[in-house]
Amino acid sequence: MITPQTINYEDKPLSGLRVVDFSRVLAGPYCSMCLGDMGADVVKIERIDGGDDTRRFGPPFLEGISTYFMSLNRNKRSIALDLKNPKSHEVVQRLLKSADIVLENFRPGTMEKLGFDRESCWSVNPRLIYCSISAFGHRGDPEWSRKPGYDLILQGMGGIPSITGEPDGAPSKVGASIADVVSGMNAFSGILLALLARSKTDRGQHVDISMQEGQLSLHTYLASAWLNAGVEPPRNGNRHLSIAPYSTYEAADGWLNIAIANEKLWGIFCKALGTEDWLSDARFSGNAERVANIDALDQLINARLAHHNVAHWIGVLQDAGIPAGPVFSIRQALEHPQVNARNTIVAGSMRQGPAFKTVDSAFGIRTRTPRSDVSAPALGEHTLEILRECAFAEDEIKSLLQDAAAQTT
Amino acid sequence: MITPQTINYEDKPLSGLRVVDFSRVLAGPYCSMCLGDMGADVVKIERIDGGDDTRRFGPPFLEGISTYFMSLNRNKRSIALDLKNPKSHEVVQRLLKSADIVLENFRPGTMEKLGFDRESCWSVNPRLIYCSISAFGHRGDPEWSRKPGYDLILQGMGGIPSITGEPDGAPSKVGASIADVVSGMNAFSGILLALLARSKTDRGQHVDISMQEGQLSLHTYLASAWLNAGVEPPRNGNRHLSIAPYSTYEAADGWLNIAIANEKLWGIFCKALGTEDWLSDARFSGNAERVANIDALDQLINARLAHHNVAHWIGVLQDAGIPAGPVFSIRQALEHPQVNARNTIVAGSMRQGPAFKTVDSAFGIRTRTPRSDVSAPALGEHTLEILRECAFAEDEIKSLLQDAAAQTT
Repeated sequence: MITPQTINYEDKPLSGLRVVDFSRVLAGPYCSMCLGDMGADVVKIERIDGGDDTRRFGPPFLEGISTYFMSLNRNKRSIALDLKNPKSHEVVQRLLKSADIVLENFRPGTMEKLGFDRESCWSVNPRLIYCSISAFGHRGDPEWSRKPGYDLILQGMGGIPSITGEPDGAPSKVGASIADVVSGMNAFSGILLALLARSKTDRGQHVDISMQEGQLSLHTYLASAWLNAGVEPPRNGNRHLSIAPYSTYEAADGWLNIAIANEKLWGIFCKALGTEDWLSDARFSGNAERVANIDALDQLINARLAHHNVAHWIGVLQDAGIPAGPVFSIRQALEHPQVNARNTIVAGSMRQGPAFKTVDSAFGIRTRTPRSDVSAPALGEHTLEILRECAFAEDEIKSLLQDAAAQTT
Repeated sequence: MITPQTINYEDKPLSGLRVVDFSRVLAGPYCSMCLGDMGADVVKIERIDGGDDTRRFGPPFLEGISTYFMSLNRNKRSIALDLKNPKSHEVVQRLLKSADIVLENFRPGTMEKLGFDRESCWSVNPRLIYCSISAFGHRGDPEWSRKPGYDLILQGMGGIPSITGEPDGAPSKVGASIADVVSGMNAFSGILLALLARSKTDRGQHVDISMQEGQLSLHTYLASAWLNAGVEPPRNGNRHLSIAPYSTYEAADGWLNIAIANEKLWGIFCKALGTEDWLSDARFSGNAERVANIDALDQLINARLAHHNVAHWIGVLQDAGIPAGPVFSIRQALEHPQVNARNTIVAGSMRQGPAFKTVDSAFGIRTRTPRSDVSAPALGEHTLEILRECAFAEDEIKSLLQDAAAQTT
C-alpha cells in the first residue's frame, strides 16, 4: 500500500508549472523564490542593462556578487531582455503562452506601459494567474493605488512601529523588512489559492496583493481590541500589558526573555532565582499586583540577574520549567543546533561564481534537495536556452542576441 | 468565451474541503481562519470545559465575548468534546474519515497521548494532510523538538529583537505577535502545497511547521550578509545602515518616516524643507558623507521639522515626490481611506452574540463574502449538527450530549 510515508517527495508540488517573473528587489523575488523552491520553473525577466537592481546592492559582496541578491534569487533562470524592443515582446508572448503564473511588483500602471497588463496577458493565455504586489493594491481608491511604497513607509502606515519600542522613546521600525517579506508570503499563498481555483474553473485570475493589507493582517487581536472595544494598544516596550513578569531582562552579559503566565510559575521562578522573600511581598501577591508594581519588580529582577550571565540563568530557569530564552543576534539565531539538525540553511552556487548559503523556506514540507539544485543565475545566464525552448530559429536567436549586445554597449 | 473576468469567484478555492482543527490560541487558529475564509469547512474541536483558552483572554470583551477570540475564529464551526472519553474518539474518527486536513499546535507528544498522532490518523484516512505547528518543529533534534515556545521566546531566539530598537537601549520585541502569525501563514502555505501535491499523489503528508524557522525566513538579506560575508547586522534604531537620510523623524506633533535614496531626491528634499543651504554643506555633499555625519544631519532635520506638524510635512514632501509617510497608530492604520475602499475590514456576528469586525486575510483573491458568512462560533454551537452529519443515531447523540453535560457540571 502507498502510505504518506512512502511517497517520493522529490516530485515537488509545483513541478511542471512555469512562472514569468517581472519582479525585482524584495517582495516579488521572495515570492518567486518560494515558487522555485517548490518546483516551478521561474523565468526571471531582467533588464539587459544590469538586471535586477539588487545585483548591485552592497556591500557586502562575495566574490563580487551581492549577498542581498543571492538571498532572494535561488532556483530561478534569468533571461535578459530589452522590453522596449518589439522583438523582445515576441519572446515574452511565447513565454506567456507556455506559462501558468505572471508575477510583477511595479507601481500600478507600469505593466500597461510595457504592454503586459493583465488583460493583454489573458488575451494570450486566459489560464494565467496574474499576481501583482503593490504598496496599496490595484483595487480600491485609484489615487492611493498609484502611490509608491517602501518597506519603511509601509511599516509606518501599518501601525507596528507605533507599538514597538520603549514608551518614552521613538516608535521602532522592525529590523527585518517585514512589510516586503510578508507581502511576498501573501503573494505566494494567493498564487497557490488561484492554482487550486484554476483546477476547478480552468481559468486564471488576478491576485492583487497590497503591502498595506499585509501589515494590517498581522495585528489580529490588537486590531480587534480597537475595532470591537475601542481599546488602542499603546507602545509598551517589551512588557506585556496584562501579565507580569513577562518581558526582556538584563543579566551580567546580555539580555534574556522570561514569561511568567501564572501563579505556579511565579512560585517556581522565585525559588529558582533564590528570592523566595518576593513571595511574601504584598506588592507581588498576584498577577494584578505585579502588573501594578511592575517598575519595582523589574528593577529587583534585573538586580538579581546581574549576578550571573545569560547562559547561567537560562540553564537555571529552563531546568525549573520556566519559559525563558536568549535574545539571539542574527548570527546566534542561525547557528542554533536545531537549525543545523533540520538543515534550515541550504547551500547553493552560481555559475562561475561562489558557493553561497541561504535560509530555506519554512513551509514544513519535505522537498529539501541536493546542493546542486539550489543555484542563483548570472544576468542572462539562460537567455539562449530559453530562446531555444521558445522555438525561435537559430537566425532569429542570433539577431535577438545581437540586438541585446548592441543595447548594453 | 469564459474569461478570467467572468468567473464566479464566490465558489471559493477551498470549498468542499474539511479541516479537523485541534489547534488553540493564535498560530493554529490563524491558519484555520484563513482556510475557512477560503471556503473550507473548519470543524474546531474544543474542550467541553471552556473550549479554546482565548475565549477567556481579556479585557477587552464585547458583550462578554473576548475580542481576542473573535479576531481568530471567524468562519469556523465548533464541536465541544471530552477527548479523554472513548465515545468522543469515535466522533473524531468519523470526522477524520470525511476530512482532508488535520491541524494541531500542541507541544510534540500531546497528539500521541490523545491517540490522534499522524500515524493513527493516516490509518483511518491516508489522504489526510496533517499539519503540526510547534516551537522548534517535529523533525530535527528530539530534545529541541519537545521544548515549548511562546511568541516572546521565539522572537528572541529568532534574532529580530537584536536588530530592532535604539542601539544604546534594550533589544525590542515586535509589538505584534509575529512569531505566532508568521507560523500560521507558513502553515497555511504548507497545507496548500500539500493539497497541490495530493492532486498528483492522492496521498497526504506531514506539514511540519517550526516557529523558529519562520522567524529565520524573515531575515533574507540580513541572514545572507552573515552567512556569505561574515557581516552581522547591528541594532541601528530606525536608521538605514548605508542610506541617509532614511529614518523616522519628529515633527511638532509626532513622527514621520522619510526615505531619501538618491542625490536627485536629496536636492528636492532640501528645497521642499526650505533648507537649500544644506546642499552646499560639505558634510552632506553625497550619500557617503551624509551617512558619516548622520547625527548632525538628523539633528538639523528634526529641528526644521519641529516648526510644523506631521500632516503639513507629509503634504509638502509627498507633493514634491519624496517618499514619506506617517507613523500610524493601530487605529489610524485601520481607518485609512484605502482600507475602507478595499473593504479590508469585514463585519461578522456571533449566534445570540454581538456583531463584530475583523481584518480580512490579505491573499488578494476575490472571495469577499457578505456579512452573514463571517461568523464566529459559540462553544459547541455546532456539536449537534456535526454529530448528525457524522451519521450517529439519535439515541447515540443523546448519550454523547449527556456525557458532555455531565463533564461540564
